[in-house]
Amino acid sequence: MLKPIADRVIIKVQEEKEESVGGILLASNAKEKPQVGEVIAVGDGSVTENGTKLPLTVKVGDTVYYDKYSGSQVKFDNEDYLVLHEKDIIAIVE
Amino acid sequence: MLKPIADRVIIKVQEEKEESVGGILLASNAKEKPQVGEVIAVGDGSVTENGTKLPLTVKVGDTVYYDKYSGSQVKFDNEDYLVLHEKDIIAIVE
Amino acid sequence: MLKPIADRVIIKVQEEKEESVGGILLASNAKEKPQVGEVIAVGDGSVTENGTKLPLTVKVGDTVYYDKYSGSQVKFDNEDYLVLHEKDIIAIVE
Amino acid sequence: MLKPIADRVIIKVQEEKEESVGGILLASNAKEKPQVGEVIAVGDGSVTENGTKLPLTVKVGDTVYYDKYSGSQVKFDNEDYLVLHEKDIIAIVE
Amino acid sequence: MLKPIADRVIIKVQEEKEESVGGILLASNAKEKPQVGEVIAVGDGSVTENGTKLPLTVKVGDTVYYDKYSGSQVKFDNEDYLVLHEKDIIAIVE
Amino acid sequence: MLKPIADRVIIKVQEEKEESVGGILLASNAKEKPQVGEVIAVGDGSVTENGTKLPLTVKVGDTVYYDKYSGSQVKFDNEDYLVLHEKDIIAIVE
Amino acid sequence: MLKPIADRVIIKVQEEKEESVGGILLASNAKEKPQVGEVIAVGDGSVTENGTKLPLTVKVGDTVYYDKYSGSQVKFDNEDYLVLHEKDIIAIVE
Repeated sequence: MLKPIADRVIIKVQEEKEESVGGILLASNAKEKPQVGEVIAVGDGSVTENGTKLPLTVKVGDTVYYDKYSGSQVKFDNEDYLVLHEKDIIAIVE
Repeated sequence: MLKPIADRVIIKVQEEKEESVGGILLASNAKEKPQVGEVIAVGDGSVTENGTKLPLTVKVGDTVYYDKYSGSQVKFDNEDYLVLHEKDIIAIVE
Repeated sequence: MLKPIADRVIIKVQEEKEESVGGILLASNAKEKPQVGEVIAVGDGSVTENGTKLPLTVKVGDTVYYDKYSGSQVKFDNEDYLVLHEKDIIAIVE
Repeated sequence: MLKPIADRVIIKVQEEKEESVGGILLASNAKEKPQVGEVIAVGDGSVTENGTKLPLTVKVGDTVYYDKYSGSQVKFDNEDYLVLHEKDIIAIVE
Repeated sequence: MLKPIADRVIIKVQEEKEESVGGILLASNAKEKPQVGEVIAVGDGSVTENGTKLPLTVKVGDTVYYDKYSGSQVKFDNEDYLVLHEKDIIAIVE
Repeated sequence: MLKPIADRVIIKVQEEKEESVGGILLASNAKEKPQVGEVIAVGDGSVTENGTKLPLTVKVGDTVYYDKYSGSQVKFDNEDYLVLHEKDIIAIVE
Repeated sequence: MLKPIADRVIIKVQEEKEESVGGILLASNAKEKPQVGEVIAVGDGSVTENGTKLPLTVKVGDTVYYDKYSGSQVKFDNEDYLVLHEKDIIAIVE
């Protein structure tokens, strides 16, 4: 598996369902909106200037909203993941 | 429900009433102006370089003014919310 | 009333008198110049990295000069106010 | 009088004499050059992250060179002043 | 051999296999995607403001994903390497 | 004389000799290159966030190389000087 | 000789050999690539906010790779040198 570095988090993105009305597929809204995914792996936290390690808030298994367009896509074992910094995660579904 | 991360706050935006004069709908003022909403959820506060957690000032239930265009929109349970950093909130109605 | 957050200050802007010569209204000077207002409310001060709260220098009732174009306009109880960070205030009239 | 905030300084700008040769007024040099003024008032110093107040180096009465185009112009009692941050002052005439 | 400075890491880049379908070579995907390489050498860690040395997380021999386009290419003993800052490494293959 | 503020240094610029070949004056090289001058006055050093004053490395009388285009020109007693931050000085001639 | 300031390093650049194939001179690769040089002199290290001096890692005599286009060229005693910050050095040849 992949182990993210420092404050990074690996996300399995939840596919966005395209909306359709009466069978006509609607283009998704052009406005930038956050997306949803499941946390697959988390880093050990970033290290501050004085050497303190700051553990992450999100945990493996969390469903999270994140800022669209943040992060980098990686392919591993034929699966696509998104790797982003925890600061790009905006909320956890509780 | 959604739990915002760190210094983030979830806002239920108060709809802006469109002004009308004698039944004629007026376009809203083009000048950038702050908007109003109710705080629905708050994060646990951001963590500083030396590991101190800084709790938020705003509380759930507060009516707040925030900088227009700040934050990210999220849809949850068919409701639209706005998630923003506390620094984008400019004042609390007391 | 409105309570500004952290290092923010609410200002009631002093109307700029338009200059007129012999009844002819002159356009105000195009050069960017600071403006004057009265402090209506102040925040509790911003919190630094180590958790220290830094109280503001300006007080309610002060007449202050501030950098034009800084801050956000808010409407509250049918009155217009300006909310700005204390750093955008340049001098107090004594 | 005006009291500048934090690390700000109020300057009474020394008028630049236009050079003339044989009565022909010469346009001033297009190159950006610092200007000279007298310090009229100084702030109490800016406050650092840990709450330390850093007093200013310049004093009322100092003649100083400052970076042209820095600062904001204010009009007070029909006099024009320049308010700038101490960092925009480059040297004191001794 | 080369010894990277501070928080730098030397990577031997794993060649990206061009995909082909039925013998027709396909252009690689235009989307920016991370790449994979093996860590060949690591720096001693960067030094913080208070003189603390922060050791690196990645080790020689690790297979890592890194942000495409980050780092500098160096040629040494007729081999091409990539030198990048550890922060440009996004995950380790475990 | 002029006393520079904080980490500033006053330089008397050493005139660049135009190169000529066989009496034909050559345009100076278009590439950006550092220049040389003599240190005439130095500031008392900048003050850090915790109030520590950091004395300068260069001394009055030093011949120094500095980054071309850095600093501000000042005229004092009919002489031209250059005032720059110590960080814009790149080396001292020993 | 020249003494670099703070975290600066003086490099004697190693000439890049132009490649030729069968006597035909090939233009060097257009891709940005690091270059190699010998360290001639090093500064005493930069001073941090709390007054700590951070000594450099590279030593006089080291052969180093550095980011192309970083640093400033200086001419001294009819020799050309490159002065750069240590952070622009990416690796030492061991």
